Amino acid sequence: MKEKLAVAVLGASGRMGSEAVAAVEAAEDMELVAALGRTDPLETLVSAGARCMVDLTVPDSTEANVRFAVEHGIHAVVGTTGWDAGRLARLQELLQASPGTGVLIAPNFALGSVLATAFAAKAARYFESVELIELHHPDKVDAPSGTAVRTASLIAQAREEAGVAPSPDATTKELPGARGAEVNGVHVHSVRLRGLVAHQEVLLGGPGEQLTIRHDSFDRASFMPGVLLGLRQVAEHPGLTVGLDGYLNLND
Amino acid sequence: MKEKLAVAVLGASGRMGSEAVAAVEAAEDMELVAALGRTDPLETLVSAGARCMVDLTVPDSTEANVRFAVEHGIHAVVGTTGWDAGRLARLQELLQASPGTGVLIAPNFALGSVLATAFAAKAARYFESVELIELHHPDKVDAPSGTAVRTASLIAQAREEAGVAPSPDATTKELPGARGAEVNGVHVHSVRLRGLVAHQEVLLGGPGEQLTIRHDSFDRASFMPGVLLGLRQVAEHPGLTVGLDGYLNLND
Amino acid sequence: MKEKLAVAVLGASGRMGSEAVAAVEAAEDMELVAALGRTDPLETLVSAGARCMVDLTVPDSTEANVRFAVEHGIHAVVGTTGWDAGRLARLQELLQASPGTGVLIAPNFALGSVLATAFAAKAARYFESVELIELHHPDKVDAPSGTAVRTASLIAQAREEAGVAPSPDATTKELPGARGAEVNGVHVHSVRLRGLVAHQEVLLGGPGEQLTIRHDSFDRASFMPGVLLGLRQVAEHPGLTVGLDGYLNLND
Amino acid sequence: MKEKLAVAVLGASGRMGSEAVAAVEAAEDMELVAALGRTDPLETLVSAGARCMVDLTVPDSTEANVRFAVEHGIHAVVGTTGWDAGRLARLQELLQASPGTGVLIAPNFALGSVLATAFAAKAARYFESVELIELHHPDKVDAPSGTAVRTASLIAQAREEAGVAPSPDATTKELPGARGAEVNGVHVHSVRLRGLVAHQEVLLGGPGEQLTIRHDSFDRASFMPGVLLGLRQVAEHPGLTVGLDGYLNLND
Repeated sequence: MKEKLAVAVLGASGRMGSEAVAAVEAAEDMELVAALGRTDPLETLVSAGARCMVDLTVPDSTEANVRFAVEHGIHAVVGTTGWDAGRLARLQELLQASPGTGVLIAPNFALGSVLATAFAAKAARYFESVELIELHHPDKVDAPSGTAVRTASLIAQAREEAGVAPSPDATTKELPGARGAEVNGVHVHSVRLRGLVAHQEVLLGGPGEQLTIRHDSFDRASFMPGVLLGLRQVAEHPGLTVGLDGYLNLND
Repeated sequence: MKEKLAVAVLGASGRMGSEAVAAVEAAEDMELVAALGRTDPLETLVSAGARCMVDLTVPDSTEANVRFAVEHGIHAVVGTTGWDAGRLARLQELLQASPGTGVLIAPNFALGSVLATAFAAKAARYFESVELIELHHPDKVDAPSGTAVRTASLIAQAREEAGVAPSPDATTKELPGARGAEVNGVHVHSVRLRGLVAHQEVLLGGPGEQLTIRHDSFDRASFMPGVLLGLRQVAEHPGLTVGLDGYLNLND
Repeated sequence: MKEKLAVAVLGASGRMGSEAVAAVEAAEDMELVAALGRTDPLETLVSAGARCMVDLTVPDSTEANVRFAVEHGIHAVVGTTGWDAGRLARLQELLQASPGTGVLIAPNFALGSVLATAFAAKAARYFESVELIELHHPDKVDAPSGTAVRTASLIAQAREEAGVAPSPDATTKELPGARGAEVNGVHVHSVRLRGLVAHQEVLLGGPGEQLTIRHDSFDRASFMPGVLLGLRQVAEHPGLTVGLDGYLNLND
Repeated sequence: MKEKLAVAVLGASGRMGSEAVAAVEAAEDMELVAALGRTDPLETLVSAGARCMVDLTVPDSTEANVRFAVEHGIHAVVGTTGWDAGRLARLQELLQASPGTGVLIAPNFALGSVLATAFAAKAARYFESVELIELHHPDKVDAPSGTAVRTASLIAQAREEAGVAPSPDATTKELPGARGAEVNGVHVHSVRLRGLVAHQEVLLGGPGEQLTIRHDSFDRASFMPGVLLGLRQVAEHPGLTVGLDGYLNLND
């Protein structure tokens, strides 16, 4: 019988953290050996025998948490934001001294969202037109969403590298805003509707055909399969990986 | 056996007109008694024994065509644009002298489009949020489409009459255009994509639910069922009717 | 200032009931005067001064609850199932002795779902083809859903009354089940997918066009606007009304 | 200035062939040097100086056409059906004697369709549930479509290789056909609706999220970008390639 993976959850009392605690406990191939809140000492990771940890804390503490893990050979999966270029560079340096340890920093754990973005960027080279619609609940303050801006940027980059012309558009008479926002030349439309959570649709069009790639996020549970996948694979990916797509076999 | 309906087509050599000729010829309950081009005399309508006619000509000639029909007791179904308030008023007056004659002036013969707009206006009173997305081929010069502007206006009117508050929107940080154009307070987004024809989606949202009403127009053939329905019913609707929805039993 | 509506909730400790308690408390034009659990005496309705009540209990007790309300001139909105023909007939009889009292029995309080079904039935008379897709979570035991069967039946009835031919279908070579189940001649397809809640799509097609009416139910909160609408209007609809659509002004 | 690609079209008077003739003539980087009908001699390919050809003929003649091309060092893009295992084996053998010549045999030239299938197979390893809906015009005789059966088979294979359990399904009470057809354990639903052309939707679901990959084929024009892409790249892919996805850089 295969040994269970010894997992620690940091930020265990937060919203995401408590979901992660439940998900790890429910996973047959994992054992939850530690669930740390804000005031618990990091040494518990070692004493509890954690082989890997998932950090779902806050930007202020995530760097210290991950450095402690790497220094003790504990693989780390990180969902906390705040990892700017300086932090990433310092982490890279630290990892050189611990070449067998893996760290995954993932801005997005929803598998469907990660796949949708990757597919959209791949497909965008082959279509004359591409636009993006993102739909969220009406309490969201920014438009477009961060994910939409990132997807549009990747699409724009893929098209530029492939030498694809801008999407055609004969509009000469426009009510302001009708054609959406432009992110690197890609039109992005933001819908805000009560009842919705987080949804995104990439529309690709060529003569006589359309390809639509849509992701619907209905609730926070959607992040857990990605967290578990990260924990299962982080030991096999020593060094730093940014983005869950680095663990998905999209090129098979 | 029921007598066939004697139908004349005006503008028979145009794109819409030639489709109408084919549709009337294919209809088992109709007989095409005249197909008039630009230079054919209107008197043919009488000599051919037309009971009703469909006008698919141009704004310059449609008023004279319809007046001729009404003066001769021939019912008229009109798809030509250009019927402003003055023309409609003169037609109303003329119809008072011919109380048994019916005229239908329809800016849109696509049954699905007419129904979608009617349903959207009815439903908009019951939802906290409503937005509109219209999608067309990239050779279209105006954004939003005329149909979208009209639908949004009807939705806004229905909500105002019912005392519904504006759709909630917490956006404070917006890339210009992301939230679309506003038509009487209703957000409208215009997508332009190669491969598409003419499509419209009304999104209505309330706590925990969404209602979506979508119409896809794939080609000009979509107007013909509406034209035939108009021809079949125009005799039963004496006087002037504006909009095909006047012939649809939406209130049963 | 307008007096608040005095509302009682029966079944207040159940899942639906506790949502209703919260919704009534949050409504500015209502006052929650009683929240009754299984063992609380119905007399509380009277002593608390309830003007109307909503019954969200169980099939075994709903009839006695509603009869008590009617006998005391309290209007009733009923979401509990189990109202067969016999119960409805007895209730009709009772209401004749209390002509000013209103009762609404609604199998479905989701406004979007009720509207979607009503619109689909209206539209189905005007399209050559109609099919239905319902999508639910994979723990559902029946396929198709009850709502889908009801919608398909209403569509079939509307088409029959309008003399519309069956949807065309040239299929001669079918893998068993590919074309779905048939409900009175209407094809119904049931999708079961992890992540979904309850969704239904009616597809209507004619030459060159498609009309799609889709309802998404994301969570139980979707029932509350319908419950509140029922409570606000029940006093104005004396007698028995079955179905929330009886309160929606779909024929304006 | 770059030399134009000298292209021949075989089957030029057929429906697909005449579209290809127009597409090649419209392509700025190509020159149409021959357009052969049923009775034109294959020798024209040589005398016209064709560098590559596209075969859009009939199963009876395609093998001879392609063999002639390979024997004369002309690259071939083939859309004709009828290439069974025996034909493919004989072609492989012939190509060994002409190692610089490329042949692409593509059952489907719609880029969006090819990409949709490839993405669906990749994604299917990461989701608990997957189902497939295909929608076509009602004159289609087979259900499900060939493309749907092929997509479902590839999905089933990808899931089996990744050790993914079958999609969960608690259905115990089913109206026959409601849950669709099963292709290697994947549920497939076939909708037939007037107005539609050819459409396919792969639905993938996990806890709290859904990924949808949809392809719409509106008309035959959708095949031409794939034909042109094949002609542009066939010289760089010596030997036999089956399936247009072999030319798409899906693994970048």
